[in-house]
Amino acid sequence: MSFNEFGHLFRVTTWGESHGPALGATVDGCPPRVPLEPEMIQRWLDRRRPGQSRYTTQRQEPDRVEILSGVFEGQTTGTPIQLLINNMDQRSKDYSEIAEKFRPGHADITYWQKYGIRDYRGGGRSSARETAARVAAGGVAREVIGSLVPGASITGYMVRMGPHAIDRRRFDRSEIERNPFWTPDAVAADRWSDYLDGLRKAGNSTGAVIEIVGSGFPAGLGAPIYAKLDAELAAAMMSINAVKGVEIGDGMAASDLTGEDNADEISMGPDGPVFSSNHAGGILGGISTGQDIVVRFAVKPTSSILRPRGTITRSGDETVITTKGRHDPCVGIRAVPVGEAMMACVMLDHLLLCRGQIGEIGAGGIG
Amino acid sequence: MSFNEFGHLFRVTTWGESHGPALGATVDGCPPRVPLEPEMIQRWLDRRRPGQSRYTTQRQEPDRVEILSGVFEGQTTGTPIQLLINNMDQRSKDYSEIAEKFRPGHADITYWQKYGIRDYRGGGRSSARETAARVAAGGVAREVIGSLVPGASITGYMVRMGPHAIDRRRFDRSEIERNPFWTPDAVAADRWSDYLDGLRKAGNSTGAVIEIVGSGFPAGLGAPIYAKLDAELAAAMMSINAVKGVEIGDGMAASDLTGEDNADEISMGPDGPVFSSNHAGGILGGISTGQDIVVRFAVKPTSSILRPRGTITRSGDETVITTKGRHDPCVGIRAVPVGEAMMACVMLDHLLLCRGQIGEIGAGGIG
Amino acid sequence: MSFNEFGHLFRVTTWGESHGPALGATVDGCPPRVPLEPEMIQRWLDRRRPGQSRYTTQRQEPDRVEILSGVFEGQTTGTPIQLLINNMDQRSKDYSEIAEKFRPGHADITYWQKYGIRDYRGGGRSSARETAARVAAGGVAREVIGSLVPGASITGYMVRMGPHAIDRRRFDRSEIERNPFWTPDAVAADRWSDYLDGLRKAGNSTGAVIEIVGSGFPAGLGAPIYAKLDAELAAAMMSINAVKGVEIGDGMAASDLTGEDNADEISMGPDGPVFSSNHAGGILGGISTGQDIVVRFAVKPTSSILRPRGTITRSGDETVITTKGRHDPCVGIRAVPVGEAMMACVMLDHLLLCRGQIGEIGAGGIG
Amino acid sequence: MSFNEFGHLFRVTTWGESHGPALGATVDGCPPRVPLEPEMIQRWLDRRRPGQSRYTTQRQEPDRVEILSGVFEGQTTGTPIQLLINNMDQRSKDYSEIAEKFRPGHADITYWQKYGIRDYRGGGRSSARETAARVAAGGVAREVIGSLVPGASITGYMVRMGPHAIDRRRFDRSEIERNPFWTPDAVAADRWSDYLDGLRKAGNSTGAVIEIVGSGFPAGLGAPIYAKLDAELAAAMMSINAVKGVEIGDGMAASDLTGEDNADEISMGPDGPVFSSNHAGGILGGISTGQDIVVRFAVKPTSSILRPRGTITRSGDETVITTKGRHDPCVGIRAVPVGEAMMACVMLDHLLLCRGQIGEIGAGGIG
Repeated sequence: MSFNEFGHLFRVTTWGESHGPALGATVDGCPPRVPLEPEMIQRWLDRRRPGQSRYTTQRQEPDRVEILSGVFEGQTTGTPIQLLINNMDQRSKDYSEIAEKFRPGHADITYWQKYGIRDYRGGGRSSARETAARVAAGGVAREVIGSLVPGASITGYMVRMGPHAIDRRRFDRSEIERNPFWTPDAVAADRWSDYLDGLRKAGNSTGAVIEIVGSGFPAGLGAPIYAKLDAELAAAMMSINAVKGVEIGDGMAASDLTGEDNADEISMGPDGPVFSSNHAGGILGGISTGQDIVVRFAVKPTSSILRPRGTITRSGDETVITTKGRHDPCVGIRAVPVGEAMMACVMLDHLLLCRGQIGEIGAGGIG
Repeated sequence: MSFNEFGHLFRVTTWGESHGPALGATVDGCPPRVPLEPEMIQRWLDRRRPGQSRYTTQRQEPDRVEILSGVFEGQTTGTPIQLLINNMDQRSKDYSEIAEKFRPGHADITYWQKYGIRDYRGGGRSSARETAARVAAGGVAREVIGSLVPGASITGYMVRMGPHAIDRRRFDRSEIERNPFWTPDAVAADRWSDYLDGLRKAGNSTGAVIEIVGSGFPAGLGAPIYAKLDAELAAAMMSINAVKGVEIGDGMAASDLTGEDNADEISMGPDGPVFSSNHAGGILGGISTGQDIVVRFAVKPTSSILRPRGTITRSGDETVITTKGRHDPCVGIRAVPVGEAMMACVMLDHLLLCRGQIGEIGAGGIG
Repeated sequence: MSFNEFGHLFRVTTWGESHGPALGATVDGCPPRVPLEPEMIQRWLDRRRPGQSRYTTQRQEPDRVEILSGVFEGQTTGTPIQLLINNMDQRSKDYSEIAEKFRPGHADITYWQKYGIRDYRGGGRSSARETAARVAAGGVAREVIGSLVPGASITGYMVRMGPHAIDRRRFDRSEIERNPFWTPDAVAADRWSDYLDGLRKAGNSTGAVIEIVGSGFPAGLGAPIYAKLDAELAAAMMSINAVKGVEIGDGMAASDLTGEDNADEISMGPDGPVFSSNHAGGILGGISTGQDIVVRFAVKPTSSILRPRGTITRSGDETVITTKGRHDPCVGIRAVPVGEAMMACVMLDHLLLCRGQIGEIGAGGIG
Repeated sequence: MSFNEFGHLFRVTTWGESHGPALGATVDGCPPRVPLEPEMIQRWLDRRRPGQSRYTTQRQEPDRVEILSGVFEGQTTGTPIQLLINNMDQRSKDYSEIAEKFRPGHADITYWQKYGIRDYRGGGRSSARETAARVAAGGVAREVIGSLVPGASITGYMVRMGPHAIDRRRFDRSEIERNPFWTPDAVAADRWSDYLDGLRKAGNSTGAVIEIVGSGFPAGLGAPIYAKLDAELAAAMMSINAVKGVEIGDGMAASDLTGEDNADEISMGPDGPVFSSNHAGGILGGISTGQDIVVRFAVKPTSSILRPRGTITRSGDETVITTKGRHDPCVGIRAVPVGEAMMACVMLDHLLLCRGQIGEIGAGGIG
């Protein structure tokens, strides 16, 4: 696996910078004969697109995806799919400050330290814009999953913003598409709206927690030891900009449980094993159980803020920086469709890996 | 990367089952001319070895490592290093129950569902015994790191057991080696001792949280996008048995911060940039800053417990299981050296990747 | 390594079809701070470009390369480089015959058998047009090699066309650029010209042998066992369309030698070991010796010919096919710059791998 | 893919030195529930074993393979299979000459130049002994192939020794097992016997050409562009010690053909397409046609010979070397089972890759 690539059989390499001419994803290993039209990908990009509410960056990018290869007469051919998104709103601005000063909490300094060169315009390669390419690739993955596991679905939503978590008793899936935060808790949406307005006006930002649930996937996906499904999902989510923690099922709270409480008891249902609970998040020993796959990740607050912070220049001089521009006060909002896309890519990759090694998915019958 | 392998240039494939004749690690890509003797690896295995206190499994395994290849006259040759650990204490016992019934919370059921066959003796491939091979490989990685970055160190310790967290004001690094829990808080060690005795007598178990800190590593390790240092560390830790959550720096709590609070301000020290804090856990944009690399992971409670739990048999019949045998009441204890080993492998891999791509580590000077 | 990708650290994924909107190469892992302008790549593409003599296809393609990412202010940044070449001359023609009938000797039938779908326009993914993307990637590799090993060079030329081999006593390197066949033997060029005119008029085609020589590369590149430099070169060359054989040094003729004759004797020169001969083609045990790296490959004749051949349709009906259109009577001619590009990619990849594992290239001093 | 590993899904890492305690192969990605006993592997090792005739090294090695993991109750489990072969005949001898002087034509000098250290005893890692591990892995691959494609077979034989080729009109498959050269031409076997006796007495050695044929494999294996079946086979064969050339089908002679002659015409048989000839060696566009897969490779003469050759020492002093010891006068003989093993590994890997990506092998029906 190379630096900018993920996946074993379904492989995605993203490329491009925030303010270059274009960005995109090279998708290799896609199964053939899956119907694919740009619109099927575009709808996921539209969810991630900036400028849709006052809570995301006001940069205007249509994010229109073009399919340059790998599709013929509306079907995938099994050869590489090139997904291209032109950058439109490369607003000419003065980058001299960002070019010289490192934003605290931002990749500015590490890119410089590593490479000795960086495209500082809009964050270059470290910009959250790179995630548009992931969402496009995830759109392809979703179509293939749909053809392989018709009942499967992947849904993401926000469960916490700053100190304010949702109340799971108010969980309403249909609410997710109705508010700008992709949250299933309408009351939380209202509270977050106020909270975020306050932060935005103060030139500040906030972190968030996103949960992604994959439903309808069969048992048997994932493999020991380093291709464990949870290890792959953890890498996939942690590779998203600004993510600092990843949890499967009970996650960090699994530490607090006793073995007795943690054990998801098993009984026999009409279609196979049924579990009394899902502390495991649908994964045992790195392999899916057939339950919901439950992943959560924490997104740190945007580091490009108006609040002045102490920093240094490339010359090593100490100074203060305030970052003007069109930044997301809660970059976690747009991370929802990105997390979904990453789960789609991982799940598809493991569906293909499993049938490659075993030939059928879920070889071991019970009962 | 294949199923049981991790790393890009420094590659480790672990192999072996709990109750087979042996297990081990195949290490490919190791730099040549690094002094390596079995003792250098053995001391890390000794830390992980079972049966050293009443808080770990009473299985007696000397876990002696043999180097079968890749070392000549006390130095690595640059060719594959085969590390072999014979299994000694394969106590003959009656496995018929485990062979037939699935332990709730255990990989029993998913291995069966995936492969349609499994070596059920002692958990087979899904046993925590597999981690001995990781510790051995990590021992090799440590020696190479020592030759490349003399000041670097990797230290793990337990920061929480069940509901009981350490008090960081009592953090004393020298305490770590003095108690059976590898914890830097002597008061916590006492409390945990009581807590664990109670659980053990009740035939129950508990989860834990481990923290691993890498110090003295240079800035510039890691790479966008999927080879981000934090993504690789997350995968590495999540691939350890029973791990359900991984955090970098502030981890899940990053969600609660504002951008202002999260920004680790930068000033100029005598040897380069100095940060006012380390919310980032030493990684920005997936690349190391030169600060301490801070990773935490949660280990769920052992699923093999004496407490009766409802389950099913391979035939689909509902039943109850209580797991007798020599199981760890807190498998998190032995996860400490395993987490250290995984960090060692990841850090070395990225040291090699960085000099492969760039030729020097930390290309971009400041000041 | 995925289906359409090659390389370990310097990784190239080519994408695109003959008659799609564009094709290109995604290059990941390129070292940073190497000067790179489109013109540096374009000059290699211009060598491969069709329609430059009556001996290559008359399709008119400017083959202009665009750099969409990974370069900033004229230097590589270390992030993925996207190289895009738009297809211009997608002449509207009637593809119904090729869509239905399989050309003997062509990938038509195997693509169909494998995928159950194929872009039949102009050969789709199996078209020699794909090699334009390799030449572009090779252009990047050449610039990086130039920065790492200033004296290194890679030169390809044709040594045989059909039954007519060159006479090595007439080998004149300066002749290579003077004839349309890239051959160092001016007399052979004249003979081939007549031979090819005859075949072209007869609607037939011919095979050829190409030799690629890499000079000035250090000893120590390549590694046991599957990353042997010769194994990688063999794969690289065999992956070029229509190649059926690959030789290193004496190649197939090595079978005829005795050990005494085959041994390239070693003496000591002012700058290190000197060899009395180069039967080995510059590679021993899969690792470079510092001598010229010598690779040859045979290209079969173009399968798209006007001569009628028996075949079947997708429905299984037997029929006859004659392929009209703008095809190369000797596709080997344009394989010369492609072979050079593949060697450039392999050599760079191994320069990076070697310094990744060992830190310096050529660790073992002699004398 | 790392240095000592090959394969995508069925991955083999070989390890070990000629005179270390043991060598072996780590096999990851093997499908589960395939019957596997040591004897199934042993029979292939027995074919490669040295000391079976006066034409191979007289080193006495039983080459007994042990299965240390990945098999349970006589079936593969889908987890890594560790194959171990202990080295028995590590005859104590004086290695001081080989330790100091480089054998011309041998990897001695390049290992030294690359790594600055090498296990010189018996060639260390560069010894042909490494191929025992490949044969063991190939034995596993053969059993899996047998379970997936019952009619498939892989057969190797020698077609040329030194200047003496077989006469294909005398081709008799049953002859292969009857002579010490694995040749299908009984007359050639007699001639080679005399030829080799002469060389052996003169302290010299000779090269050879081996052909490997895979029969009964389905159409659709292999993939553009770098995972072409022929590219993979070329890499696999070129990675065998002493191999200098690889051919598919007509190989280097494809250069001499016209397009008309090279086209394997297609007609319709009762079970699908039938070809009038097999110039292509069963591969078009990198994908199998369903015909015999035909690969040939040339093995250079053993470089360890009694004839004196000029060389240098590690100190750079010029000297002469004659290599005493138990060396193969024609290492090509034992390369026959090795070439078979490599083809088995490649074919199985592509069977798994194909069903991974496509789900069925040979998706596109004809007729």
